[in-house]
Amino acid sequence: MPAPRLEAQVRFLIEADRLKEVLRQTVTTRSRRPENDAEHSWHLCLLVLVLAEHANAPGLDVLRVLKMVILHDLVEIDAGDTFAYDTAGQAGQHEREARAADRIFGLLPPDQASGFRAVWDEFEARETPESRFAAAVDRFQPMLLNLETEGAAWARHGVTEDRVRARNAHIAEGSKVLWDYMSEQIGRAVAAGHLAPKPSG
Amino acid sequence: MPAPRLEAQVRFLIEADRLKEVLRQTVTTRSRRPENDAEHSWHLCLLVLVLAEHANAPGLDVLRVLKMVILHDLVEIDAGDTFAYDTAGQAGQHEREARAADRIFGLLPPDQASGFRAVWDEFEARETPESRFAAAVDRFQPMLLNLETEGAAWARHGVTEDRVRARNAHIAEGSKVLWDYMSEQIGRAVAAGHLAPKPSG
Repeated sequence: MPAPRLEAQVRFLIEADRLKEVLRQTVTTRSRRPENDAEHSWHLCLLVLVLAEHANAPGLDVLRVLKMVILHDLVEIDAGDTFAYDTAGQAGQHEREARAADRIFGLLPPDQASGFRAVWDEFEARETPESRFAAAVDRFQPMLLNLETEGAAWARHGVTEDRVRARNAHIAEGSKVLWDYMSEQIGRAVAAGHLAPKPSG
Repeated sequence: MPAPRLEAQVRFLIEADRLKEVLRQTVTTRSRRPENDAEHSWHLCLLVLVLAEHANAPGLDVLRVLKMVILHDLVEIDAGDTFAYDTAGQAGQHEREARAADRIFGLLPPDQASGFRAVWDEFEARETPESRFAAAVDRFQPMLLNLETEGAAWARHGVTEDRVRARNAHIAEGSKVLWDYMSEQIGRAVAAGHLAPKPSG
């Protein structure tokens, strides 16, 4: 019989497989189907490896950032995905997700459960250079996909330029370079007709 | 205008989005649709974080292992997925994938291109403790999904116990603990009728 510790780890890893079924509002660039949280999380890992040099903070702990982006969405297995522009859905979001963190990380052996929970809490609090950069790529990635798909998710939800700028400006807390880039791209998307300007009046 | 370096990085990250369209033979545990390479790669990241303590080598460089599993399948954007039990498809596989690595990593600025290529080459060579453990989780994960889906991918391809054992025994080079666990699970799958025993005669 395998050790109870390894059995618990395997049960957690199988439960985590459900993240592949949690769909987001963003669509993939090729087939333009909704992206799921698991592939979104992988894409963030790749962004971290490629873009870490643009973080505001020098000497970022890249392993810590990777842990955050690998784990950050697991809570959505229970709590579901909350669209970035769904202000109603954001009410109570953190409480729902914290309950999910208790249950899902709680499947692990206690030392790993508390270690993973600490990583998730750090990500949520967005107070360290690592969590600020992780939060920056978590906003940068869906914007990249939106820009590549003529603003598909923005258009479907009637999101306008002012809301995109307000919701994503915190990218600058993690990386001024990435926010300057994205800010310019938002302007181009408006000029190209892929993102509606702020309604007048 | 953004710097050419950041432009190149963004083009690479958008090209990488295609990994979400590369389908594998393994199915997800819930909807039982084919898993894609991007979500598979994320799941491997999670396995690394949870199971690294079971590596044969003490003091594993976990960041290095994560880089390998994040990058290892990008070549399949061009070369396609080769099923673990497709011996015909494995002829020429490494050459196809090496050409893909040239093109895909070549989208990055030269210093990052050569750094990522070195990670991929190390993974492919399977000579370091890190690459042996990365290869171990890359085999362990699809077996977990197969075990959770009554051997769906094995049954569809008529794969028998002897081939499963032969193809996956190298898990022991990265982690004897994980191979012992999986070896026992293979026996249980045969007993449960989810994996056909070796054909007699």
